[in-house]
Amino acid sequence: MTHRPSSATLDRLAAVVGSKYAIREPAAMDGYMREMRQIWHGRSPLILRPASTEEVSRILAIANETGTAIVPQAGNTGLCGGQIPTEDGREVVLSLERMTRIRAIDPANSTITAEAGCVLQSVQEAAEAADRLFPLSLASQGSCRIGGNLSTNAGGLNVIAYGNARDLCLGLEVVLADGRVWDGLKGLRKDNTGYDLKNLFIGAEGTLGVITAAVLKLFPKPKSWETAVIALPSPQAAIDLLGLAQAMSGNRVSAFELIAALALEITIRHKGVRRPLASSAPWYVLAELVDAVPGAMAALLEAAMEKGLVSDAVIAQSAAQRAELWAAREMISEAQKPEGGSIKHDISVPVSRVPQFLKEADDAVSRFMPGVRFISFGHLGDGNIHYNVAQPPGMDKAKFLDSWHQMNDVVFAVVAKLGGSISAEHGIGRLKAHRMPEIKSPVELSLMRQLKTMFDPRGILNPGRVLPE
Amino acid sequence: MTHRPSSATLDRLAAVVGSKYAIREPAAMDGYMREMRQIWHGRSPLILRPASTEEVSRILAIANETGTAIVPQAGNTGLCGGQIPTEDGREVVLSLERMTRIRAIDPANSTITAEAGCVLQSVQEAAEAADRLFPLSLASQGSCRIGGNLSTNAGGLNVIAYGNARDLCLGLEVVLADGRVWDGLKGLRKDNTGYDLKNLFIGAEGTLGVITAAVLKLFPKPKSWETAVIALPSPQAAIDLLGLAQAMSGNRVSAFELIAALALEITIRHKGVRRPLASSAPWYVLAELVDAVPGAMAALLEAAMEKGLVSDAVIAQSAAQRAELWAAREMISEAQKPEGGSIKHDISVPVSRVPQFLKEADDAVSRFMPGVRFISFGHLGDGNIHYNVAQPPGMDKAKFLDSWHQMNDVVFAVVAKLGGSISAEHGIGRLKAHRMPEIKSPVELSLMRQLKTMFDPRGILNPGRVLPE
Repeated sequence: MTHRPSSATLDRLAAVVGSKYAIREPAAMDGYMREMRQIWHGRSPLILRPASTEEVSRILAIANETGTAIVPQAGNTGLCGGQIPTEDGREVVLSLERMTRIRAIDPANSTITAEAGCVLQSVQEAAEAADRLFPLSLASQGSCRIGGNLSTNAGGLNVIAYGNARDLCLGLEVVLADGRVWDGLKGLRKDNTGYDLKNLFIGAEGTLGVITAAVLKLFPKPKSWETAVIALPSPQAAIDLLGLAQAMSGNRVSAFELIAALALEITIRHKGVRRPLASSAPWYVLAELVDAVPGAMAALLEAAMEKGLVSDAVIAQSAAQRAELWAAREMISEAQKPEGGSIKHDISVPVSRVPQFLKEADDAVSRFMPGVRFISFGHLGDGNIHYNVAQPPGMDKAKFLDSWHQMNDVVFAVVAKLGGSISAEHGIGRLKAHRMPEIKSPVELSLMRQLKTMFDPRGILNPGRVLPE
Repeated sequence: MTHRPSSATLDRLAAVVGSKYAIREPAAMDGYMREMRQIWHGRSPLILRPASTEEVSRILAIANETGTAIVPQAGNTGLCGGQIPTEDGREVVLSLERMTRIRAIDPANSTITAEAGCVLQSVQEAAEAADRLFPLSLASQGSCRIGGNLSTNAGGLNVIAYGNARDLCLGLEVVLADGRVWDGLKGLRKDNTGYDLKNLFIGAEGTLGVITAAVLKLFPKPKSWETAVIALPSPQAAIDLLGLAQAMSGNRVSAFELIAALALEITIRHKGVRRPLASSAPWYVLAELVDAVPGAMAALLEAAMEKGLVSDAVIAQSAAQRAELWAAREMISEAQKPEGGSIKHDISVPVSRVPQFLKEADDAVSRFMPGVRFISFGHLGDGNIHYNVAQPPGMDKAKFLDSWHQMNDVVFAVVAKLGGSISAEHGIGRLKAHRMPEIKSPVELSLMRQLKTMFDPRGILNPGRVLPE
């Protein structure tokens, strides 16, 4: 168990970074205490902004010695509250935002070594400057940071072609709970010497160690894209189209985003997105092929129409039109707000089971609360659907949101039945930690608890996140 | 510590599988006691051949209770001795070879669920029958088995395009040391719920648990390849050619194998391989593009010749010629035998450092033993070189092989200097376990030992492999 830090402990911790980088005035803390969805609002006695791995090491050594809870925070864009301190004001925030150095870039090895505080977009730009692509791409890329991306194993738009944050990482530097530093910053494509420590820290949300730097994979810069918005009669048609697209293009599908009709409608209604197709359909897909044979998208769509999979489609004819088609996808999250309350689920199932999931979840949720509307969209190529349930029109928003956990229960029961995940890409954080005993077998839960105890025996690292206390 | 099993313990263990599948006669054991390179020849009181996960579970529960050492064995093709029992005759062998069921195949999800005893080639064939590709491909694919491939994180020929065994695995079923079964057989592309147990077992060589089944990724079947053997002046030219190939082809390089002139010569001399090019050069690359724009290889070679990277090349004009070009690569291992003793190193360095590695290692080894010859070849695209040192002509073979460990010392010093790995794809097993304290930091070694103790507190699982006892 951790203790409320004494003022002597706070002084020792602050001295590591110097008073300029130790925030103790509540008024200066606000940006670190809230997150995007405004679900959590924490309190903290101290925010530490170290500049180096060595400072992080000294901070954790003191925290471990004194039993002080540490909440690592990178870009503060997480959607599950893992980066926000609790309301009791006893957790110290460790912000990685000053560790923004690109330590190395090796174009011939296609790697970049970035500190945890590097903003994702700055890594993309450094790669670009070296004529390479860093493919991790998500809505918050202008503010999220690599340490957070790795700690939550971020996904995003290009997973189908390039993998998630885990797949894009070759090596890590991690400060352990007691302040020791594990230097695993290897830039090797192959290394079969011993246990895979790296993947334990990735996705652990700072509960097993604090990631301070990473070696990331780069790729050749794509030379061409073909982008289309495609109207389809059903999710099954979308699955069939995906199989056809993969086969016909030689595995060149770089995005395959499902968009329910209502999701598109609200971007038109509230965000001024131009209707991409004259006809309407119950489902749409935004598909992209990268570096495919020129004309591959048109050939695909022709074959798909012959098979009755596709009712209408538009292929972007310019970079500007490509950006416009993408807007229909990117605006969905924002466009939900004027529609009232939205209860969100970041789920995945096997790709083949998405149609069954959508049918059974829609049915079960409609039984639970008649009149709701489904704003389903997401990364169909990964089996990852952002399954958002919008309130019935006219219902009181607060009353609707009161059913958040019960609604989750209804949806997660379908996810469990289909062998899926209740957190495909957003993580567990504080939002879902209480669900772990429901979704994990006793064997898995006991292994996870043993790992937590092994790596963090005093329980100082982001306590209560991932595993409930 | 483990104990020599009593005859009562052996009887209990044998009863789990039934006498038909419990081998106790030394004469019937020979195939399980030797490996390809004939370095180890073990002895065992009992070979168990279970048919199910449940039998494996009962075996480990008894072994854990009685402190009996268990050596898991799949296809017995490992090159580091991890699968061979020690010579003292106290380790029981657990062969997975009867667990050969393909439990499920889901083409729309691009997954196959295979038991650990499935021969790699049978998984490739099951994927092919479902119009999919399982891309793991290595010389021993006709006899190696999936459980061994995963336990050693096998690499092979297609890593540059599809990743290694770790990258190809979505889920695992593992029997823990005490007999509990962890069911992690999920077929999900994205699942961010908790710690990544899967990657701990992959590459752990059976020392943390026994893998009994896996969900593996499938891919669309390629429609076309372009294959070339290319003559180059230097390894640096090969690195530059790789960068050019990735950029020009849109990341379509599916093989990029470096072959030293002497490696090619011995396949011609001893294996009847036809000389692929009329001219000769100090280095060759076997390069393959998959599903690229037709003519991409010719365009690449033309651009590379203009830049002076390439002196000569031949592009396969037929499937038969493609197979013939591949023979030049595939015969190298066998062709070394008539040349006398060979001291082998399966190393990796960052791709950009391969030229420096080859120069410095050649220099250091030549100083250590003048007159040796270098048969260097391997997966340049992964920075993975099979750096084999052939004995000086005329030297006594046994005397040469006596310098195995000292020669390793010389080579591994260069590997360490360049941030490389002393086992890129073959693993640690018994061959290199004693090297772990040299190559791992005290922090990493202590974490590995803690993990071993956590997962296998009685030390019954493949003791002395990976971590020295």
